[in-house]
Amino acid sequence: MGKRTGNGDESLTYKASGVDTSANDRMVDLIRRSTQRTFDTRVLSRHGGFAGLFGLDYPERLLRRNYREPVLVAGTDGVGSKLLLALEHGRVRETGIDLVAMSVNDVLTVGAEPLFFLDYVACHRLVPEQIAEIVGGISDGCTQAGCALLGGETAEMPAMYRPTHFDLAGFCVGVVERRRIIDGQNVEPGDVILGLASSGIHSNGYSLVHKLLARLPKQGDLPVDLGEPLADAVLRPTRIYVEPILALLKRYRRKRVVRAMAHVTGGGLPGNLPRVIPNDCDVHISRKSWPVPPVFDLLRTLGVEEEEMYRVFNMGIGFVLVVRPAFAGSITARLEKQGETVYRIGGVRRGSGKLIWR
Amino acid sequence: MGKRTGNGDESLTYKASGVDTSANDRMVDLIRRSTQRTFDTRVLSRHGGFAGLFGLDYPERLLRRNYREPVLVAGTDGVGSKLLLALEHGRVRETGIDLVAMSVNDVLTVGAEPLFFLDYVACHRLVPEQIAEIVGGISDGCTQAGCALLGGETAEMPAMYRPTHFDLAGFCVGVVERRRIIDGQNVEPGDVILGLASSGIHSNGYSLVHKLLARLPKQGDLPVDLGEPLADAVLRPTRIYVEPILALLKRYRRKRVVRAMAHVTGGGLPGNLPRVIPNDCDVHISRKSWPVPPVFDLLRTLGVEEEEMYRVFNMGIGFVLVVRPAFAGSITARLEKQGETVYRIGGVRRGSGKLIWR
Repeated sequence: MGKRTGNGDESLTYKASGVDTSANDRMVDLIRRSTQRTFDTRVLSRHGGFAGLFGLDYPERLLRRNYREPVLVAGTDGVGSKLLLALEHGRVRETGIDLVAMSVNDVLTVGAEPLFFLDYVACHRLVPEQIAEIVGGISDGCTQAGCALLGGETAEMPAMYRPTHFDLAGFCVGVVERRRIIDGQNVEPGDVILGLASSGIHSNGYSLVHKLLARLPKQGDLPVDLGEPLADAVLRPTRIYVEPILALLKRYRRKRVVRAMAHVTGGGLPGNLPRVIPNDCDVHISRKSWPVPPVFDLLRTLGVEEEEMYRVFNMGIGFVLVVRPAFAGSITARLEKQGETVYRIGGVRRGSGKLIWR
Repeated sequence: MGKRTGNGDESLTYKASGVDTSANDRMVDLIRRSTQRTFDTRVLSRHGGFAGLFGLDYPERLLRRNYREPVLVAGTDGVGSKLLLALEHGRVRETGIDLVAMSVNDVLTVGAEPLFFLDYVACHRLVPEQIAEIVGGISDGCTQAGCALLGGETAEMPAMYRPTHFDLAGFCVGVVERRRIIDGQNVEPGDVILGLASSGIHSNGYSLVHKLLARLPKQGDLPVDLGEPLADAVLRPTRIYVEPILALLKRYRRKRVVRAMAHVTGGGLPGNLPRVIPNDCDVHISRKSWPVPPVFDLLRTLGVEEEEMYRVFNMGIGFVLVVRPAFAGSITARLEKQGETVYRIGGVRRGSGKLIWR
């Protein structure tokens, strides 16, 4: 507010109306390193800065060899109400990782390699250091996902957002060879369902999380021992599965051992896994096949019915693969070698496109 | 609020926490037609719906012939505070066109053909009919820009957005042949600067517009005759320049007559045109060379200095081309035939990367 200037009482400037363009310049300087560390030779210099340019043919023409019929795969998502919780705890940087994770894990489900990412940050007033921190987190996420942070937009909307509030939207574009698209069409009875451990709540269900945490007593021990500070448990960034999954697909390129993949977001397993299964199959999932992390026990204890928990949260499984049974063991070993925690959570049977708990 | 349900006093459901997933299903049905009318054969069916798929190689392999070294061009933008004004007037549909325009005109500046678009809509509470109207407008914009509405995300964040409020972010991906990228590098002294008429204020400077309009007397005539209702003048959607510009570039493909293009957004002509000009050139612009639309006279009358007006608003010029002088006449004729209003607003001289008013 102290920055406001005006040309006299009656004359308004753009800055006085609440938009500070010099803060914008300072922010651009601050975030330059965050973006440039995600670049490789495929990112062209940004002529005039109106748009980001990404050479689909690598200079060494690798792509031409790798992709005969390239299909672009695009996804967009936000972080949702997790932002508000992160703001309360002064931990906004990690929401940048969440933002990237939400889109790249979606793009990954068809077997696509994420190429680049763009972000949209909207806020009450542009605080360059805050934006730089968020973009730093987005850059962390892009590095984890192996994609370029090709561009972004920061919007100052004092009349839309409350002071200190901001919203994030992310966009990811990936590429996959047309005949290697993983779409669940070949899923058949007998296939094995592997679940990859989530890092926590990820980025869905936070409107509910927020209301539940408000029920905690201000003092004293938590009703459930989390083994770590509450803020760590509820704010840990969404796991990015790109590297291990792409390595796996590359390894089994010819064998097509992975038949479907799902990113477990809003709606939990029942809301996401059936989407990638043919109508004549059911997925049978055993809840006892993996350990539910204590943070979900805490949320349930605060007042959510067991069934609702599984309809809203990932409950410990963040990404799912439907694989050919003969390869379930070797796929598990390979993913575990890459640092993933893998559970055999169920199987495919003849049915009608439903998820059945067993 | 009337839709809230809960499982008893203590037990919370996701819906009771403020997120209504069945409204989401209804919305998805409502917007299906809006998205599908933008599809052509390049859009693949959306397996599982995690991400949108776009075949870069047309089935008929046209692209392979058209693009030897395809460069992807991506841009993202929002509509900013224009949303709030549109909400006050109950005219949200057209903001969807603004959203598309902001990104596709950016992507267009390098000579790229927009391929697809994704949207992010964040709101207090999901009102399917409102979202459907916005997405309808986005679909209108995509149709105008000739790109597919490949996907989108709607986020309900009751604790972030005020009731009835929403924010929009858009994301566009285009493609351009590497050696046809228009980047201003060949701009030279003597080049002619053509300005294409804007449709009004477009989508920048609305924090200021909002404050200025609040100064209007509640009753009586406007201090400036707009020749149309105030709401029409201030809310007309941003013009989309894709069709005429792509037709022009196609016509002159071999001659490279267009040397630079700029989308006039926040910062006006001085903030955008110098970005695409080499450091050893200046652009000299004559303010008298085009008529300033009355809506800008109104805003100035309400209390903004003349210089500030040109630093914030497009003042009637929404898109700029820097062209080889010998072709300025034929380019103008061609664009006018396509329905554009074109002004010869200035020229390029030796200098140091500045815009000079004359």
